[in-house]
Amino acid sequence: MVLELERAVEFSMVDLANIAYYPRIYDLAHRFFEATWPEICGQTYPHVLYERKIGFPLLRIESSFHHPLRYGDIITAKITIPHLGNTSLTWRYRFFNQEGTLVWTSTQTTVCVDMDSMEPQPIPDDIRAGLQSHLELEGEDA
Amino acid sequence: MVLELERAVEFSMVDLANIAYYPRIYDLAHRFFEATWPEICGQTYPHVLYERKIGFPLLRIESSFHHPLRYGDIITAKITIPHLGNTSLTWRYRFFNQEGTLVWTSTQTTVCVDMDSMEPQPIPDDIRAGLQSHLELEGEDA
Amino acid sequence: MVLELERAVEFSMVDLANIAYYPRIYDLAHRFFEATWPEICGQTYPHVLYERKIGFPLLRIESSFHHPLRYGDIITAKITIPHLGNTSLTWRYRFFNQEGTLVWTSTQTTVCVDMDSMEPQPIPDDIRAGLQSHLELEGEDA
Amino acid sequence: MVLELERAVEFSMVDLANIAYYPRIYDLAHRFFEATWPEICGQTYPHVLYERKIGFPLLRIESSFHHPLRYGDIITAKITIPHLGNTSLTWRYRFFNQEGTLVWTSTQTTVCVDMDSMEPQPIPDDIRAGLQSHLELEGEDA
Repeated sequence: MVLELERAVEFSMVDLANIAYYPRIYDLAHRFFEATWPEICGQTYPHVLYERKIGFPLLRIESSFHHPLRYGDIITAKITIPHLGNTSLTWRYRFFNQEGTLVWTSTQTTVCVDMDSMEPQPIPDDIRAGLQSHLELEGEDA
Repeated sequence: MVLELERAVEFSMVDLANIAYYPRIYDLAHRFFEATWPEICGQTYPHVLYERKIGFPLLRIESSFHHPLRYGDIITAKITIPHLGNTSLTWRYRFFNQEGTLVWTSTQTTVCVDMDSMEPQPIPDDIRAGLQSHLELEGEDA
Repeated sequence: MVLELERAVEFSMVDLANIAYYPRIYDLAHRFFEATWPEICGQTYPHVLYERKIGFPLLRIESSFHHPLRYGDIITAKITIPHLGNTSLTWRYRFFNQEGTLVWTSTQTTVCVDMDSMEPQPIPDDIRAGLQSHLELEGEDA
Repeated sequence: MVLELERAVEFSMVDLANIAYYPRIYDLAHRFFEATWPEICGQTYPHVLYERKIGFPLLRIESSFHHPLRYGDIITAKITIPHLGNTSLTWRYRFFNQEGTLVWTSTQTTVCVDMDSMEPQPIPDDIRAGLQSHLELEGEDA
């Protein structure tokens, strides 16, 4: 099941060329990432970080910039999980603008860590169960 | 010839886990990118953008996050050009901290565009000449 | 009539001390500012900037930081207009968290400019009419 | 004695109108603030924060935006301390561009806190001594 969220490109994302400054596309992806947690496991990401002391720092990212993001664009993010391992998992982001144009894709591998030690740890069962329902299916074209 | 620049991790890069928020590592890479231009072709990047109306938006990025960047770290960036095409070129970034630990690597393919039309254009000869002297050599381990 | 908007404090706002990095509170204020335009005059801020070529750069800001903003806080912004001049106007921001605690206040004087020349110009009538309905009333305690 | 530092306006500061997005001028001020510490007391700000567990959150800021900051501008910051209290102190920032034009002024009152409790505490003696040498003198026009 694809996670789907929507958000506008705001003024502060855009550079002098009138397109999103690319590091802020990653920031937008993180804002979407945060927003998925209630749907994934019924907990906010602040709760996961602060109360459960679990975080998901990045290991690897591959991204393609297909089309500029412009101020005022409404971005729909479609997020799936192509891989769910013991301590690590991979997220796939596809961003579309209001015309349905694919603007950005990114595959991001994160590792589950204990926020105190920053050491890898197995993804807790309840969170794993929530993630499993968003696993990318063979041939899925959401 | 490897381009080498140095810069501190500043307060605003760091998140609540006391490590650099990953989109700001891309922002740091862009700050290094801007700073290479005088050495590459004797022109500042504002000059390239504003006077020559040439920009280099991203097409693809692959990055690996090897080690956290922490507040106060001094980052040395080593930058080379693994590929120089007609309208596109690829930059390789390797970031090391003050202990010589490799913290981040990134390969970034950019396209040369006319800033008014945002259409691809051949890399101008004088800039190409400057870029050529930073091409990555076979087996180079800078 | 007070403009009222709500928004979460997201991960990227927060610093290593676990409170919002103060320049990002101004960024949050700007995101609220952008979001007020449809209610003020039925036009988005991108439309105002791009189509009508009108912008509102800052002249003066006074701000008080009453209480930390923390990750996950839900901020309610109450925005009024204490002064509406010919070419300039003043915005008053009051930010409250989910417990009703006043966290930040700011008074910001902006000038209406032609975006091509960046020269001051009178606030257009239709926008002025919209702003007038949000003028701060004597003794108002929204 | 006026603290004086210099820094370029980088690409990521600038908005679609080709001038610095104003929250990033505060961010620039913080980068200058961090950079003053070795001269003030021979310690880096990361050392002050992490080892001595002392921070300086904001209480009040007044700022005037005199002139746009543009990409490529070289900003000279002149920083003095108009007031040094027991637990709080005020910083005065004046930013000039490469033509000597005053672009931004800001008066910022901060409080010295224990970073663990975030409670106010007296400014430690060694830091106070360092700050004292940058007190703004009557009639000083640095």
